[in-house]
Amino acid sequence: MKLKKILVLNGPNLNLLGEREPGVYGTDSLEEINDEIQELAAALGMECEFYQSNLEGRLVEKVHQVRDYFDGCILNAGAYTHYSYALRDAITAVRKPVIEVHMSNIYAREEFRHKSVLAAVCAGQISGFGKDSYLLALRALLPLV
Amino acid sequence: MKLKKILVLNGPNLNLLGEREPGVYGTDSLEEINDEIQELAAALGMECEFYQSNLEGRLVEKVHQVRDYFDGCILNAGAYTHYSYALRDAITAVRKPVIEVHMSNIYAREEFRHKSVLAAVCAGQISGFGKDSYLLALRALLPLV
Amino acid sequence: MKLKKILVLNGPNLNLLGEREPGVYGTDSLEEINDEIQELAAALGMECEFYQSNLEGRLVEKVHQVRDYFDGCILNAGAYTHYSYALRDAITAVRKPVIEVHMSNIYAREEFRHKSVLAAVCAGQISGFGKDSYLLALRALLPLV
Amino acid sequence: MKLKKILVLNGPNLNLLGEREPGVYGTDSLEEINDEIQELAAALGMECEFYQSNLEGRLVEKVHQVRDYFDGCILNAGAYTHYSYALRDAITAVRKPVIEVHMSNIYAREEFRHKSVLAAVCAGQISGFGKDSYLLALRALLPLV
Amino acid sequence: MKLKKILVLNGPNLNLLGEREPGVYGTDSLEEINDEIQELAAALGMECEFYQSNLEGRLVEKVHQVRDYFDGCILNAGAYTHYSYALRDAITAVRKPVIEVHMSNIYAREEFRHKSVLAAVCAGQISGFGKDSYLLALRALLPLV
Amino acid sequence: MKLKKILVLNGPNLNLLGEREPGVYGTDSLEEINDEIQELAAALGMECEFYQSNLEGRLVEKVHQVRDYFDGCILNAGAYTHYSYALRDAITAVRKPVIEVHMSNIYAREEFRHKSVLAAVCAGQISGFGKDSYLLALRALLPLV
Amino acid sequence: MKLKKILVLNGPNLNLLGEREPGVYGTDSLEEINDEIQELAAALGMECEFYQSNLEGRLVEKVHQVRDYFDGCILNAGAYTHYSYALRDAITAVRKPVIEVHMSNIYAREEFRHKSVLAAVCAGQISGFGKDSYLLALRALLPLV
Amino acid sequence: MKLKKILVLNGPNLNLLGEREPGVYGTDSLEEINDEIQELAAALGMECEFYQSNLEGRLVEKVHQVRDYFDGCILNAGAYTHYSYALRDAITAVRKPVIEVHMSNIYAREEFRHKSVLAAVCAGQISGFGKDSYLLALRALLPLV
Amino acid sequence: MKLKKILVLNGPNLNLLGEREPGVYGTDSLEEINDEIQELAAALGMECEFYQSNLEGRLVEKVHQVRDYFDGCILNAGAYTHYSYALRDAITAVRKPVIEVHMSNIYAREEFRHKSVLAAVCAGQISGFGKDSYLLALRALLPLV
Amino acid sequence: MKLKKILVLNGPNLNLLGEREPGVYGTDSLEEINDEIQELAAALGMECEFYQSNLEGRLVEKVHQVRDYFDGCILNAGAYTHYSYALRDAITAVRKPVIEVHMSNIYAREEFRHKSVLAAVCAGQISGFGKDSYLLALRALLPLV
Amino acid sequence: MKLKKILVLNGPNLNLLGEREPGVYGTDSLEEINDEIQELAAALGMECEFYQSNLEGRLVEKVHQVRDYFDGCILNAGAYTHYSYALRDAITAVRKPVIEVHMSNIYAREEFRHKSVLAAVCAGQISGFGKDSYLLALRALLPLV
Amino acid sequence: MKLKKILVLNGPNLNLLGEREPGVYGTDSLEEINDEIQELAAALGMECEFYQSNLEGRLVEKVHQVRDYFDGCILNAGAYTHYSYALRDAITAVRKPVIEVHMSNIYAREEFRHKSVLAAVCAGQISGFGKDSYLLALRALLPLV
Repeated sequence: MKLKKILVLNGPNLNLLGEREPGVYGTDSLEEINDEIQELAAALGMECEFYQSNLEGRLVEKVHQVRDYFDGCILNAGAYTHYSYALRDAITAVRKPVIEVHMSNIYAREEFRHKSVLAAVCAGQISGFGKDSYLLALRALLPLV
Repeated sequence: MKLKKILVLNGPNLNLLGEREPGVYGTDSLEEINDEIQELAAALGMECEFYQSNLEGRLVEKVHQVRDYFDGCILNAGAYTHYSYALRDAITAVRKPVIEVHMSNIYAREEFRHKSVLAAVCAGQISGFGKDSYLLALRALLPLV
Repeated sequence: MKLKKILVLNGPNLNLLGEREPGVYGTDSLEEINDEIQELAAALGMECEFYQSNLEGRLVEKVHQVRDYFDGCILNAGAYTHYSYALRDAITAVRKPVIEVHMSNIYAREEFRHKSVLAAVCAGQISGFGKDSYLLALRALLPLV
Repeated sequence: MKLKKILVLNGPNLNLLGEREPGVYGTDSLEEINDEIQELAAALGMECEFYQSNLEGRLVEKVHQVRDYFDGCILNAGAYTHYSYALRDAITAVRKPVIEVHMSNIYAREEFRHKSVLAAVCAGQISGFGKDSYLLALRALLPLV
Repeated sequence: MKLKKILVLNGPNLNLLGEREPGVYGTDSLEEINDEIQELAAALGMECEFYQSNLEGRLVEKVHQVRDYFDGCILNAGAYTHYSYALRDAITAVRKPVIEVHMSNIYAREEFRHKSVLAAVCAGQISGFGKDSYLLALRALLPLV
Repeated sequence: MKLKKILVLNGPNLNLLGEREPGVYGTDSLEEINDEIQELAAALGMECEFYQSNLEGRLVEKVHQVRDYFDGCILNAGAYTHYSYALRDAITAVRKPVIEVHMSNIYAREEFRHKSVLAAVCAGQISGFGKDSYLLALRALLPLV
Repeated sequence: MKLKKILVLNGPNLNLLGEREPGVYGTDSLEEINDEIQELAAALGMECEFYQSNLEGRLVEKVHQVRDYFDGCILNAGAYTHYSYALRDAITAVRKPVIEVHMSNIYAREEFRHKSVLAAVCAGQISGFGKDSYLLALRALLPLV
Repeated sequence: MKLKKILVLNGPNLNLLGEREPGVYGTDSLEEINDEIQELAAALGMECEFYQSNLEGRLVEKVHQVRDYFDGCILNAGAYTHYSYALRDAITAVRKPVIEVHMSNIYAREEFRHKSVLAAVCAGQISGFGKDSYLLALRALLPLV
Repeated sequence: MKLKKILVLNGPNLNLLGEREPGVYGTDSLEEINDEIQELAAALGMECEFYQSNLEGRLVEKVHQVRDYFDGCILNAGAYTHYSYALRDAITAVRKPVIEVHMSNIYAREEFRHKSVLAAVCAGQISGFGKDSYLLALRALLPLV
Repeated sequence: MKLKKILVLNGPNLNLLGEREPGVYGTDSLEEINDEIQELAAALGMECEFYQSNLEGRLVEKVHQVRDYFDGCILNAGAYTHYSYALRDAITAVRKPVIEVHMSNIYAREEFRHKSVLAAVCAGQISGFGKDSYLLALRALLPLV
Repeated sequence: MKLKKILVLNGPNLNLLGEREPGVYGTDSLEEINDEIQELAAALGMECEFYQSNLEGRLVEKVHQVRDYFDGCILNAGAYTHYSYALRDAITAVRKPVIEVHMSNIYAREEFRHKSVLAAVCAGQISGFGKDSYLLALRALLPLV
Repeated sequence: MKLKKILVLNGPNLNLLGEREPGVYGTDSLEEINDEIQELAAALGMECEFYQSNLEGRLVEKVHQVRDYFDGCILNAGAYTHYSYALRDAITAVRKPVIEVHMSNIYAREEFRHKSVLAAVCAGQISGFGKDSYLLALRALLPLV
């Protein structure tokens, strides 16, 4: 059976995971988290590709690839979550399930983080469980891809 | 080893699951969903108690019980999500992890559903995966209880 | 010919009719008004059941019964009109015609009464005619049930 | 006994009834609706005069006539409902009962239709029952004139 | 001389007093506070009845009793303070002096607590003095009953 | 010396002066007020033409005439004051001094009357002095024409 | 081949073109502009009828004629653009393509001009090109009629 | 006949008249303007006292004197117009006619100047006529004192 | 035992007590009220100093004295309550308990009185009990000083 | 005669034209559209360069080139239209005519698309005509370059 | 060479520097800071006069002196920064460079401190560097005076 | 002694300095300004690295370098100041002092420039002094690095 291909996409500042505000984001690096995701993916019959960029436009273009090369996408858009209508349009164009994740509980932080401009065009949202947010999203994708 | 006790709490109109707007909420009844939750709980070393009420005050009181009788709580507060500051206060008082779940993607529906008054005091939020929202919440609780 | 069954549902504080602010709500008690409604119902080939509760959740549950046991509903939700999204969800779930009534002209009173969260999911709204609001609603239901 | 004289006043675009958005407004023409209103009026001991204009100022002037020549008024101000403070002032000046009617449920349509600037100075409002909105308004006027 | 009868009414989550956020609400239980209130009441020639409920509708109904069975009321409506227009209507209907109290300074807490929908229809408001808020309210009632 | 020509322009509902809400607008008819204005105008070396219309478009057109046939204009736009951007544009186009007057103090009435969309393009505003508002405006025009 | 019939509709104050604020609107009169439009129309196989009114209601009625007598419409509603929901309803009723034009760039002017209540129901909008806005609209209509 | 006593009260920065932004406020000093006012007052059978202060509290206290020592007051509160609720309360307390004046047209200037917190409790407002605003106010006071 | 020293501070217009709007503020003068406060203070083992000013800056400076010369402060800031961030900063700087009092129920009056910019930095607020508001505040201070 | 050089600039997601939401954007690819634009350009004596980027900063830099290397610019900024103040600043810096185009009618779509932060600094805006929006913009540029 | 004269103006509560919230404002007294400023001024060929007042009106008057007696001004208006339009008008009237300083970063504190009503009429703003804010302002003034 | 390393970071459109709107930004090019900064830095015992980018993501990444390679940062984020929450997050992550500078007084320009989303996480802000804003920022950094 062919493995389902999942894009795990991380936005601005997430390359600093493990160093940046560990009280909020934990001490695991992005690489360590990606390893855990890959491991679970394998167990679930999925295969992940990982991509991080601080550039909104590069994230837009990577989302475009989901159209032809992936079965689904897990997206932590970082701060772009709150204003990137360009990313929103890209997700709409792609017509594959995209799940929005946040490591921190965005509703318990600053006011500007309470509004996601992406949520309305994603399949669902998972927020607040640290690196587990990604693992839960992987499980959530399973029946959708 | 002692099983972790989890309260699965459902709010107004969720007793109609399976009948009410199946396009939005699916065709499983609340009992069928609860059975699936219990099954997964057992596999994860947890044990669930289920409670549904259409009365805000009864939900408040059930949340109070989490304080002494449960290790964590999964809460689908239905429409109370959007205005019940009484439930919010109850969650704050309880000091046990409470996870907010929604079957539908509340951010893709009417404006009034975009605001949760509970989110800021919950551990996290899972929204948009139908009955899987509950199952994912159970997994999310595991490391927190 | 089978009589159409209509639920006449009254919300918080309406048990005080006749005593509470008679300048606004008139001097008839709820029972007296119900009698007039029943009388007109009979003349129109309808039969009414009456229910009043001060508890939002009980009103939600009574609306649920409309689904299976009534042909239509006349709802004066009192102050819940202005914030009970739980009632709104119940009405949506029921798929039978519900008519929102108000004895006073809610648009000529305090600002908070100008917004009904129920109106968008009801068949129509009648506001400002004292007890006649109920009688007009009964006539309005006739072609809808 | 002298018949009560009622002005039935229709505002902009209502001359297109029957042709305009029949899904929203039904297939009866304004004339056909007026005939039904007149028929009911006769049965109730009332007599109606009908007037339609697309000009705000002409509607204002017709409302002025209510002062001296009519016992009451049924007003469907169409889109002027939402911004004509001139009509509002005319109604205030007239000191006779004016009932605001809408064929469609204005609260279930676009945001701008949710606000009536006339409602606060009318006796009451009836919204959502197609041509029956007029007939109900006639009955509602009966005890007021 | 006949003792004045005062209803001391507590809303949602106040049954947890002493346990819930002691940094905010102190360590006295509701029972201990009530005992202090009763003691002061006796000294002032008053007699208190105590009632707590987490159900908005039950609080509404208890306020209704003030009409016939009490001379005044001290009301800590908890979170309902901020959205229960049903309670507001009940207070208006009762025509006896009702004093709104809060143990914490609601203006020094979250934004949503800065607005009381009850304040405009109460005789006055006392906020921020812990259990003394109730005792001060009792003294404030004295010249009003 | 050639007399200065002044247009005194009155908007919707002002034809009812003397009859409409005399507590607010006094008991003089528009004609009586106009006579007083004409009298003062003569004393000041001015000559007035009077025009009243309930139609926004007719008022727009009359303002256009100020361009070629008048030295200045006194405008009581009634309720159009609060939303007629068409009148505002007409005033801008005319490049002659226009003075906005109100008989009542619009800032002591309903919220919607606090905002004039005309004020920013008029020479000045006089509000609250009954018929004297017109007379004061005439004097105010004197040095401007 | 039958020529397509186009209504070119101009709203309030546009009769002053050439005189009014030439810095904003140019020095051509409405007649001169209409001549240019007619010339281009002929070249494109279209035929225009021209109508200007300062009365909202007359514009509404002219739009109604589009239904039966025209293939499309070019509408410069002047200031009514910003508040005439009556015109909006007329456009909706007509079900023929209507193109909204503005000579000036409405987005570079006062705040109140940034919002068009007509735009959502027009086929498209052209703003900022002086008299060319009309000519471009004619070309834009070509494939739509 | 006893002369009517009028207080002419000027607020912050008005001591700079003649020097400050002459394009907006003219070249007359406050003293020169006061002389003109006194001259007109004499002609009208009135007598003015003049007071200017940059201190909100001193203006409040001077308004208090109106209560016992003056028949009316002309108030140019300068920037305090836009936020001094203390002055507003003083005017309310005084129960003598106070007329609000502005030399510039406050509605044609910055947004913050469009709102007067004093207007609702003054007899009327005159805005935009330079020093004539004071003279017109004097005439406006005549029938009120 | 050393008496606790309390500053009783009154803001703008409160020197008019007894004369100003007696329906709202009662007929006692500030001096009479102060006498009652002093009397109760003595009974409670406290000693009051009284100060009233209409100048915001003088009130700021008097609050500064609380730092070194008083044990607590009762503050009725009058209209400054609603906008004096300078007073707010003074209270914050002082680090002694300050209780905000209002004689009238500020929440039952004009909209602008519903917001206190001082409340968040005071120990508590007492509103609506006439002169008793001061007496209750004195009792409220007792356990805080 | 030297050909006028025009930059045709497309923003995020427009590389997907023809594939993305064809119901909204049509089935032509960006290349096909560009070919049509070039063809019309040639006919009009213009020459176009085409550039598309998903990166806001790259679009900014390309706009900078307009300064020295182009006579005008047609800009479809996609979602950046609604929040890129960086693009806005670039357009302001360039001092050459830039025309904003949209294929869809942005005013008939989601609320966030109704606001363009670019419009105020562009020469004009054309919205709603599919690929014709570009062609019309080319014609609109002709007299401006 | 004549020394440039600079007014260093401090507003409400700044007389408490060194004592008030040292965590926010440091431990230096206003006198100590002024000494440092004078020292730097001398080194830069400037001479400072220092003035502090808690009274808005006194600050207004001191700003007036800048007109004739100073070359520039450094202004820390304390809380008046956020609402004193009287100070704003004074600065506008003075036509000498005024630099707004804040010791704390006002944008990292309470919401109400994020808005300065003075900033738009000052030459520039320096915020967040403790006493260095004054010293930097002195350097910033150098090329402006 | 080791020189302190400072990153001077410039955002979108700042590469056009000297050419772009010289009335606002002066005639010095970015290179000339950088030279002056370097010169002062040397005098103060600091050493600057300069970086300009029009890409938000590149600026984010450059800020990341501050973490390990710089002692402080001077940031003129251009238009990104007003919406780049990604930059804000980067600054928070870096935990080195970052000073926000603007050449123009952003509070005296368009409304959208009055809000900085970066200010709350920077050490301080300097706005309005042309190229001196950078030089002042360098001095401000001195005691912080």
